[in-house]
Amino acid sequence: MCITQLSVTLGLLGRSGCSSVGCVHHLFSRRCSRKRAFQIAKSFLPILEWLPNYRVKEWLISDIISGLSTGLVATLQGLAYALLVAVPVGFGLYSAFFPILTYFFLGTSRHISVGPFPVVSLMVGSVVLSMAPDEHFLIEGSNATGTNGTGALIDTESRDAQRVLIASTLTFLVGILQVIFGVLQIGFIVRYLADPLVGGFTTAAAFQVLVSQLKIVLNVSTKNYNGVLSIIYTLVETFEKIGTTNIADLIAGLLTIFVCMVVKEINDRFKHKIPIPIPIEVIVTIVATGISYAADLEKKYNAGIVKSIPRGFLPPEPPNVSLFSQMIAASFSIAIVAYAIAVSVGKVYATKYDYAIDGNQEFIAFGFSNIFSGAFSCFVATTALSRTAVQESTGGKTQVAGIISAGIVLISIVALGKLLEPLQKSVLAAVVIANLKGMFMQVFDVPRLWRQNKVDAMIWVFTCIASIILGLDLGLLAGLLFGLLTVVLRVQFPSWGGFGNIPGTDIYKKVKDYKNVIEPEGVKILKFSSPIFYANIDGLKSSLKSTVGFDAVKVYNKRLKALRKIQKLIKKGKLKATKNGIISEPGINNEAFETDEEPEDNQDLQVPTKEVEIQVDWNSELPVKVNIPKVPIHSLILDFGAVTFLDIVAVRSIKTIIKEFERIDVRVYFASYQDNLISQLERGAFFDDTVRKDIFFLTVHDAVLYIRNQMTYSDNQDPIFEKISLMQESKEPIEFSEASQPDDELDVQEEAMRRLAS
Amino acid sequence: MCITQLSVTLGLLGRSGCSSVGCVHHLFSRRCSRKRAFQIAKSFLPILEWLPNYRVKEWLISDIISGLSTGLVATLQGLAYALLVAVPVGFGLYSAFFPILTYFFLGTSRHISVGPFPVVSLMVGSVVLSMAPDEHFLIEGSNATGTNGTGALIDTESRDAQRVLIASTLTFLVGILQVIFGVLQIGFIVRYLADPLVGGFTTAAAFQVLVSQLKIVLNVSTKNYNGVLSIIYTLVETFEKIGTTNIADLIAGLLTIFVCMVVKEINDRFKHKIPIPIPIEVIVTIVATGISYAADLEKKYNAGIVKSIPRGFLPPEPPNVSLFSQMIAASFSIAIVAYAIAVSVGKVYATKYDYAIDGNQEFIAFGFSNIFSGAFSCFVATTALSRTAVQESTGGKTQVAGIISAGIVLISIVALGKLLEPLQKSVLAAVVIANLKGMFMQVFDVPRLWRQNKVDAMIWVFTCIASIILGLDLGLLAGLLFGLLTVVLRVQFPSWGGFGNIPGTDIYKKVKDYKNVIEPEGVKILKFSSPIFYANIDGLKSSLKSTVGFDAVKVYNKRLKALRKIQKLIKKGKLKATKNGIISEPGINNEAFETDEEPEDNQDLQVPTKEVEIQVDWNSELPVKVNIPKVPIHSLILDFGAVTFLDIVAVRSIKTIIKEFERIDVRVYFASYQDNLISQLERGAFFDDTVRKDIFFLTVHDAVLYIRNQMTYSDNQDPIFEKISLMQESKEPIEFSEASQPDDELDVQEEAMRRLAS
Repeated sequence: MCITQLSVTLGLLGRSGCSSVGCVHHLFSRRCSRKRAFQIAKSFLPILEWLPNYRVKEWLISDIISGLSTGLVATLQGLAYALLVAVPVGFGLYSAFFPILTYFFLGTSRHISVGPFPVVSLMVGSVVLSMAPDEHFLIEGSNATGTNGTGALIDTESRDAQRVLIASTLTFLVGILQVIFGVLQIGFIVRYLADPLVGGFTTAAAFQVLVSQLKIVLNVSTKNYNGVLSIIYTLVETFEKIGTTNIADLIAGLLTIFVCMVVKEINDRFKHKIPIPIPIEVIVTIVATGISYAADLEKKYNAGIVKSIPRGFLPPEPPNVSLFSQMIAASFSIAIVAYAIAVSVGKVYATKYDYAIDGNQEFIAFGFSNIFSGAFSCFVATTALSRTAVQESTGGKTQVAGIISAGIVLISIVALGKLLEPLQKSVLAAVVIANLKGMFMQVFDVPRLWRQNKVDAMIWVFTCIASIILGLDLGLLAGLLFGLLTVVLRVQFPSWGGFGNIPGTDIYKKVKDYKNVIEPEGVKILKFSSPIFYANIDGLKSSLKSTVGFDAVKVYNKRLKALRKIQKLIKKGKLKATKNGIISEPGINNEAFETDEEPEDNQDLQVPTKEVEIQVDWNSELPVKVNIPKVPIHSLILDFGAVTFLDIVAVRSIKTIIKEFERIDVRVYFASYQDNLISQLERGAFFDDTVRKDIFFLTVHDAVLYIRNQMTYSDNQDPIFEKISLMQESKEPIEFSEASQPDDELDVQEEAMRRLAS
Repeated sequence: MCITQLSVTLGLLGRSGCSSVGCVHHLFSRRCSRKRAFQIAKSFLPILEWLPNYRVKEWLISDIISGLSTGLVATLQGLAYALLVAVPVGFGLYSAFFPILTYFFLGTSRHISVGPFPVVSLMVGSVVLSMAPDEHFLIEGSNATGTNGTGALIDTESRDAQRVLIASTLTFLVGILQVIFGVLQIGFIVRYLADPLVGGFTTAAAFQVLVSQLKIVLNVSTKNYNGVLSIIYTLVETFEKIGTTNIADLIAGLLTIFVCMVVKEINDRFKHKIPIPIPIEVIVTIVATGISYAADLEKKYNAGIVKSIPRGFLPPEPPNVSLFSQMIAASFSIAIVAYAIAVSVGKVYATKYDYAIDGNQEFIAFGFSNIFSGAFSCFVATTALSRTAVQESTGGKTQVAGIISAGIVLISIVALGKLLEPLQKSVLAAVVIANLKGMFMQVFDVPRLWRQNKVDAMIWVFTCIASIILGLDLGLLAGLLFGLLTVVLRVQFPSWGGFGNIPGTDIYKKVKDYKNVIEPEGVKILKFSSPIFYANIDGLKSSLKSTVGFDAVKVYNKRLKALRKIQKLIKKGKLKATKNGIISEPGINNEAFETDEEPEDNQDLQVPTKEVEIQVDWNSELPVKVNIPKVPIHSLILDFGAVTFLDIVAVRSIKTIIKEFERIDVRVYFASYQDNLISQLERGAFFDDTVRKDIFFLTVHDAVLYIRNQMTYSDNQDPIFEKISLMQESKEPIEFSEASQPDDELDVQEEAMRRLAS
């Protein structure tokens, strides 16, 4: 029992080693507590779970084969993605090596290949470039007039050192954030990355990657732009300087793009016939390196080559904590994007092979991986679907394949790296570009999305444009907020309408949408299909007005006015109040005519009166010609079937609405409410002597039946007639209790603002 | 007709001068078009509506009386609130004068007194102080070591000029924003200022006002702090320097606070007996000015006095457009807060006197007023409830009272202002502080709010803390976002549960909440009480799992596995497949036992097979001991009564859910859906050959009856038995079409993220 609970708490997903039945007897026994400790250890180190169960005979061979292939791809991708981070390519190798070591122990996915990923690399790169632009490293005494970036000499060594420091510090910070997210168990925030948002974000990212790689393919140097629209400025400058293109680099790049795209297309089209995809990037890179070395492209054509790949490792370096404050916003976005990519890829294979991925443990695993690798000058690690697909399709069964791929990268670092030095950067950039096709193709989703759901299409477009204009980190945040806003708006502006009965059934449907739907006589039924809260309480009120066809407050005020006129006439003797109504003296031209435009007099407001009960039929011709809207109903039913919550403003306003309608003799009922609504209303002090629970009904039909019953069996007195005390003899002005209500009670939701203004 | 439509469009609220009946005949006639032009003019200049109807005899006297009293209060408040803006107090007089002139022509409220208001003034002041702090105006050559603000001399003249320029530029910008808001008709954004938000914001504002005035009462000078926590730093420094307090100012301030609060209490307690509230602030100010002049407090006690009130007017000055970019965020907040205050106060009196306020016209009126007054060195105008209450309670009927109060302020500017110069600033500050009581009292709302609605209480506290820490403008924005987030969260985490029938009725209620509720046999009913969208689709899935008690995908995978085992055994001849099920050969110890922990083999996944139809009763004992969860149901009903919208992710996921359940022979039905849902689903490409509209029912009971019917009249074959094609003879491996589904179709909401990772 103890262990089962514990293991669930720790996210072990029920794989308890100590069965709950067996354990009940050993509760708190030494054996059990030792097992419990082991459970805790397992939850933090999933490797303790899977490595002891490793089937060496069955899996080791395929893991090794998979590791070898993945390692080659990882080496290449590490180099290529380092270009996006704007650090020397050798650091990409580190980034393809270190994080795997930690993930091996901590991760719960058996198939993902941990390492760099283009979009995340670019996000890191944009921080790096904004904090360490070329302009900061101009060598003094060099041609200072050449501020356009071509003339001045740049101290590349200290610049690159600074950039590596920034990238690794950022990685460290991302790691810390991810661990915090994992410990706080807020993996769920990834849910806010809606599909259309990710689509728009990805397309923008592809565009950003393309622009950043384009200048490498052309071997054109541009300034480092930051902030809003920087990608557009970069693009413009790249084209302005297109004359300085290095032809050797351009040709190598274009060839690479062409070959890669063709072979990828073949891989894709014949994926059922080819056992594993052709690793075209690896092949191209090796060939290109050979050509570059043989033809000495660097010296002969001034081609931009990789040049120096450090041999061996750098000692671990502490992050520069003082930089944290400048990168906190970006690291937030990066931490979430990196995690989201890894988990979504991981889930694909977890579903395929029927095991579970623990979202929070993944956060912790990637967090520690980034902290660890950040100390070793790496940039942020996540996974790449392409690399993971290689690892899985070549037979990878567990992270043992991952650790072997790390071994291959290790060999590249300590031995083979030097061999890649003649490789042109433009080839690496071209490999990155060739992989963007799928991301760009998403643009074609938009028209379909628009047809299916306009709001989702708007999220897509907004996120894409925001990510291009504001940059990826702010763009993601903007898209996220926009997405949440659409939810609020969709909740805020619900569908509503008057409902009527489908004859012969107990079903009620919208009057506007259905033929032959009948509204019960004297009853209006309004359904407001959303929760009610501060942002849509006005909407409820106006839909109420338009459903019933009059404004309850106005009707009340007009009636009050008419009463005062009548009272005046009675005083003057021109009218007589009788038990059966008001009798106008014949032949008297009525002076109480009132135009609608006439502004009302203040003093008038404190009049009305009592003593002889008279009844006024407000729907008949009145002796005073005040234009009182007719009230053709005696009951109003609010269908609360879709009202899932109410906030305090809503509770108060609904109470006000009830009272406003009661004043003009319309009873308000509630039907098909959710079960938790009553307790919400109780807490909100909704019920009192006048508003009681007997106005709530299980269904609209129940309410209608009740009302019909009431109408039939109530005393014969027509309820539309209203009893109002009207002073006839008494001279002293008596306060009419309800007259002061409007400013005290009505319009409660303005209360706070009014208090503010006091 | 033309005019009616037009006037409605223009927000004339139906007060059309040309009656719709009469006008139909004159359609497009000259008379009508002239009238139409007049209507348009009226909608932009509401004065054309009310001034011609002005009842001189009845109203003029009371308007004049009201204007005189209000003018005195406005003069005083103008001076006092200028302290909050950190400009010389004389500019407060301008701010109490100019905006009224424009509002007179453009405004739709007849009762509000336009002019400065403390919270808004403070918001303007915080921008002014952050952009023109004392430190920018140190006189060179003065004691430069005195950076603590006491030693160094400050060039107050150029500082004040700069501050006035900033304040008026900000006012101008606020005006522009307000006009834009009005033209775009987005007055509704005020709705997002929920009550608890306003409560928290106001209390924070009161705290900020208190701190800023405290140092004036004490006559202690502090540095100008900006940004996060600046108010706390100011408070701390004020107390650190409390030794430098000017005793004369302190005594005058404390006395003022005491007298004002006592008299206000009296005003409040006897408001029914006193015809108009005692204008204690005006009295105190006059007395204090007299004392200060008589005792020559400035020279004898070094008291801080108002000193210079400019006589006459400054020429209009263009705003400094180059400052716009630095103040755009703050001006956004200010524009909305100023508008919200004015409209909420205006609505109180509009309700009381039964006329309508046009929200968008108000935006335009205040916008032009601020643009106009911004040109005359004023700060932002709105209204103050206290002043408006004076205007109304002394008999003000229209804005004629406002224009007369402006006349009084004008007299102060050109003539009386000089007389107020000996007044101590601490008295003005004390007047401001004495008005804060009501705002601070709101703190006591929080416990009640917490009891009534925890979320609303959290909004209150969050907004209050954010507004204190981040400042009023950012704090308001943070509170607003937090409020919207709570809506998203409340929608995202709805109530849900399995429903059952109340015997003898067609009503279904939550099984957990009600006794004796019966779930129909073999049927589960889930109600998920919220719209379904990207952020809660996971919640729907997990609530589904916990309601039905199993995971449909897992069940399917396990069944597939069992089938493969059975197939192997059949091949080995250990089992025989017959038409009636699988018969295990007796006495054979089953080898197909499988532990739950055992990781699954990849190759296994592509096996299953066809040809001889066999039936497997998945709920009976199987010959292979694969642990398949039992599926005790044949139908699942989703009650969509509260699902008001679906986004594209939800549509796809629900389709996937249907297919997942169909695979294990559970039919999914939908009941009591909203009318617009079907069209949403149609657009989202939900329906196809397998998912048809016949799974939608009007009510849960209809669905249950249908299912019961189906069960009774379907052929006698037990539907829990499943037909699966199982290969027996054929040797060639046949692809089992559904086996590849998991990675293609399932978990659709990860699709975009996966594509991103490609």
